[in-house]
Amino acid sequence: MSLDDLSRDQVQSLLDEQTAAHSALKQRGLKLDLTRGKPSPEQLDLSNELLTLPGDDFRDAGGVDTRNYGGLTGLTEIREIFAPIMQVPVEQVVAGDNASLAMMHDNLVFALFHGVPGSEQPWGVEESVKFICPAPGYDRHFALLEEYGIEMVTVPLNDDGPDVDAVREAVKDPSVKGMWLVPTYSNPTGSVVSEAVAAELAALETAAPDFRIFWDNAYAVHHLTEQQTKTADILGLCSASGHPDRPVIFASTSKITFAGSGVCFLGSSADNIAWYLSHLGKRTIGPDKVNQLRHARYLKDVDGVHALMAGHRDILAPKFEAVVSILHDRLAPYGVASWTEPKGGYFVSLDVVDGTASRVIELTREAGVAMTPAGAAFPYGDDPRDRNIRIAPSYPSPDELAVAIDVLATSVLIAAAEQVLAG
Amino acid sequence: MSLDDLSRDQVQSLLDEQTAAHSALKQRGLKLDLTRGKPSPEQLDLSNELLTLPGDDFRDAGGVDTRNYGGLTGLTEIREIFAPIMQVPVEQVVAGDNASLAMMHDNLVFALFHGVPGSEQPWGVEESVKFICPAPGYDRHFALLEEYGIEMVTVPLNDDGPDVDAVREAVKDPSVKGMWLVPTYSNPTGSVVSEAVAAELAALETAAPDFRIFWDNAYAVHHLTEQQTKTADILGLCSASGHPDRPVIFASTSKITFAGSGVCFLGSSADNIAWYLSHLGKRTIGPDKVNQLRHARYLKDVDGVHALMAGHRDILAPKFEAVVSILHDRLAPYGVASWTEPKGGYFVSLDVVDGTASRVIELTREAGVAMTPAGAAFPYGDDPRDRNIRIAPSYPSPDELAVAIDVLATSVLIAAAEQVLAG
Repeated sequence: MSLDDLSRDQVQSLLDEQTAAHSALKQRGLKLDLTRGKPSPEQLDLSNELLTLPGDDFRDAGGVDTRNYGGLTGLTEIREIFAPIMQVPVEQVVAGDNASLAMMHDNLVFALFHGVPGSEQPWGVEESVKFICPAPGYDRHFALLEEYGIEMVTVPLNDDGPDVDAVREAVKDPSVKGMWLVPTYSNPTGSVVSEAVAAELAALETAAPDFRIFWDNAYAVHHLTEQQTKTADILGLCSASGHPDRPVIFASTSKITFAGSGVCFLGSSADNIAWYLSHLGKRTIGPDKVNQLRHARYLKDVDGVHALMAGHRDILAPKFEAVVSILHDRLAPYGVASWTEPKGGYFVSLDVVDGTASRVIELTREAGVAMTPAGAAFPYGDDPRDRNIRIAPSYPSPDELAVAIDVLATSVLIAAAEQVLAG
Repeated sequence: MSLDDLSRDQVQSLLDEQTAAHSALKQRGLKLDLTRGKPSPEQLDLSNELLTLPGDDFRDAGGVDTRNYGGLTGLTEIREIFAPIMQVPVEQVVAGDNASLAMMHDNLVFALFHGVPGSEQPWGVEESVKFICPAPGYDRHFALLEEYGIEMVTVPLNDDGPDVDAVREAVKDPSVKGMWLVPTYSNPTGSVVSEAVAAELAALETAAPDFRIFWDNAYAVHHLTEQQTKTADILGLCSASGHPDRPVIFASTSKITFAGSGVCFLGSSADNIAWYLSHLGKRTIGPDKVNQLRHARYLKDVDGVHALMAGHRDILAPKFEAVVSILHDRLAPYGVASWTEPKGGYFVSLDVVDGTASRVIELTREAGVAMTPAGAAFPYGDDPRDRNIRIAPSYPSPDELAVAIDVLATSVLIAAAEQVLAG
C-alpha cells in the first residue's frame, strides 16, 4: 500500500492524527541524539581494563621501552593482531594513534604534495583531481575531499558495492585518482562489497596510472548477527591483477575499544608503506606506543578482538532490532519508506518519500531529536532525491532509542501526508 | 693557547698520542649514541604513575566521558595546566596528541592549502614561500620546510636570540612568511630569546601581511640550574604591537612525562586557533582525551610540572656538568674548541676547528660513538664553517657519557692536529 491508495480525507486524518502525536512528543521536551555513530557508555565499559594498563611492564615483546621516542611503524604486537583482520602481511601494516581518519587525511596530503608511487607528478599540480564517491557514503570522507579541493564523482552504491559500470566509466578520466569504499557494512547502508565486485575493481584499467582505492574497513569485525561476513581480500585481488599499489586499507579500534583513545592502522603494498613512512617521519617521531602496548595486552590476539566484538553485538543487536521493528510497525502499513536491515556496522539507512527528507529532519528537530542533516551521506551534502536519512542507534539507551524512532516515524508520516495533500 | 702556538713536532706528538688513545678506544667495541635528545630510562621512571592512570574514573572535570569521541580542543584541565606556562589564555590553547612536531606540520599544511588569517591567498599558490631559520637550529624544523618546498633563509642565532638586523632585512621579501624560534634553551645552543629581541620581532614591519613566528617552546620549564629562565611573552608583545596573529606557540610534555606518549599544545590568537580547529576538525574527531586526563591527574597543576622538572634536573644537571668538565679538561689546554654551558634544554653545542666537524664525527663513529651528522643544525644540512657538533647528553648513563665525551674530545684533537699538519 502507499498513501496514493488513500483518499484525501484519509490522508488528512492521518496527518491530523500524526500531528497530534507530534505535538504530544514535543511537550515531552526530549533531547535525543541519533546523529553520530558513537558507542554507548555500556560498550565503552567493556574495555575499562585499558584504564589501568599497561601497568609496570612498559616494554614491548622485543624489549623496547615504549615510553620513549621512536618506532614509526608502531608496535609489532598490535600490528600482528590486526594484520590478519586487514588481510595484509604484518610488515605492511602501520599502527598509528587514535584516528584512521587522520591517516586518510595524511595520505591525501602527501599525495597532493608529492604524488604516490606510480605518479608522474604530485597530484596537487594536476589541473584537477577527482575521487569516486559511492553514495550514500560517509560524510567525513567527503569533507576531506572538499577540504583539499578534490572533486567528487558520485556513483550509486548497490547492495554488493559500488556500481561497477559507473566506476568503469569514471576511471576513463585520468584526473580520477581514487575512490572511497567502506567494504564491509558500509556507512550508512550496511552494504558489503562482494568478492566479485572487489575483483572487478582490482582489475579495472584506469586512465590514471596511480589510481588508489581507499578501502576504509572501519567495521571489519563489527557483526550484528551470527554471520561473520568476510571482507574481500582487496590487496590480494589487486596484486593478482597487476595493481599491487592500488589499495590503501584503513582500520581502527575506535569502535572496538575506546572511540577517542584507540589505535588506527594502515595496510598497503610494501612500496606504498615505504612511501607513507618516508613522509610520516617528517611529521612525527612515532605514535603513542604505550597506548599500543595497552591495547595489545588487553586484546591479546585476534580471538580476543572477536570475543570483545561479541560483547558489543550483545548490546547493539537489540537496538538495531528495535529500530527495524518500530519502523516496520509504524511505516510499513503506509508504504512511505524503506530501510536497511544491516548485518553489521553502525547505521540504519532510511529512505523516505522523495523530496521529504529535509522536512522529516526539521520535524524530528522540533520534537527534540537531532538527526544527521538530510543529504549528509551524499557528496556536497546533496541528496538528489532528498530522501535519505541516516539513523545511528548505538548511543542512546534502549528506551531513548524507542522514543527517538517513534518521533522519526511520526515525522516521516507527517511529511509524506503533507506532500500528498500539497500535490 | 692554540695549536698554532705549537711546533710541528709538538703537534705531531699530540696527534700520535691521541691516535693511540683513539685506537685503544676502538678496541673497546663501544656502542654509544649521542645523536638525539632522548630522556633516559631514569627520567621516564619519574612518571611511571601514568602507566596505571587514569583508573576507574574516566570523566573529566566537566563530567565528559573521555573514552568517547569528541572534544577537538582537548580537555580543559590539561589546557589549564599549560596555559600559564605558554602565557596564553586557556581558551586559546589546544591540547593534542603526542607530538608538537605534528602540530607544526599541520599548521604548515593548512597554511599552504588555505592560507592563514590575513593571507591574500593560500601560501601554496605563491610563487615561492620562505621561512627564516636561525642557525644553528633544530634539524626537524628544517626537514619540515624541505618536505614542503619552503625555502630556508638562514640568519645567525646569537646568545639573546636571532640576529634582528638580519631578520629585519629578510622580512622585506613578501615571500618570507614565517620564522622558526626555540625561545628558551634553544636546540642546540641553549640560547634564550631576550625580552628585547622578542619585542623587536613582535614589532617588525614585514612585507608579508600574514607573517608568522613559529615559537617552539619545547624547553619552557626544562631548567638545568636554580635559575628559572622566564620565556618572553610573545603573544602579549605581538598583540601590543598590533600583530596579534603573528605568534604560533608550541609546547609538549614529551620531555616532561613520556617522550612518546605525551600531550602537545598549540597556543595563539583566538583567530588563529579558530582557523586551526576548522581545518583540524576535518582530520580528526578529537585527540586522545584519556591520555590527557591521565596527564592532568598525574601533573595536577603548574606546581606539579615544576616539581617533576626538578626531578629531571637532578638527573640531567650532573650529565651536563660532566660534558662541560671533560671538554674543558681535554680541549681547553689546546684552544681547539668552544662549547655552550646551557642553563636548560637538552643539548651542548660544540664548535670545533673550522673545517673539521665532519672529520670529528667520522672519528667518533669509528670508535663506536654515534653523533648527529655534522651540519645537521643548519638548513639543508650545510654548516658553512663545518665546525658545529650537537651533543645530546641525556640518554646515556653517566659512565657511558663520560666515555663518549672522551672519544669526542680525542677525535676533536686528532682532527685539529691533522689539519695543522696538512696546512
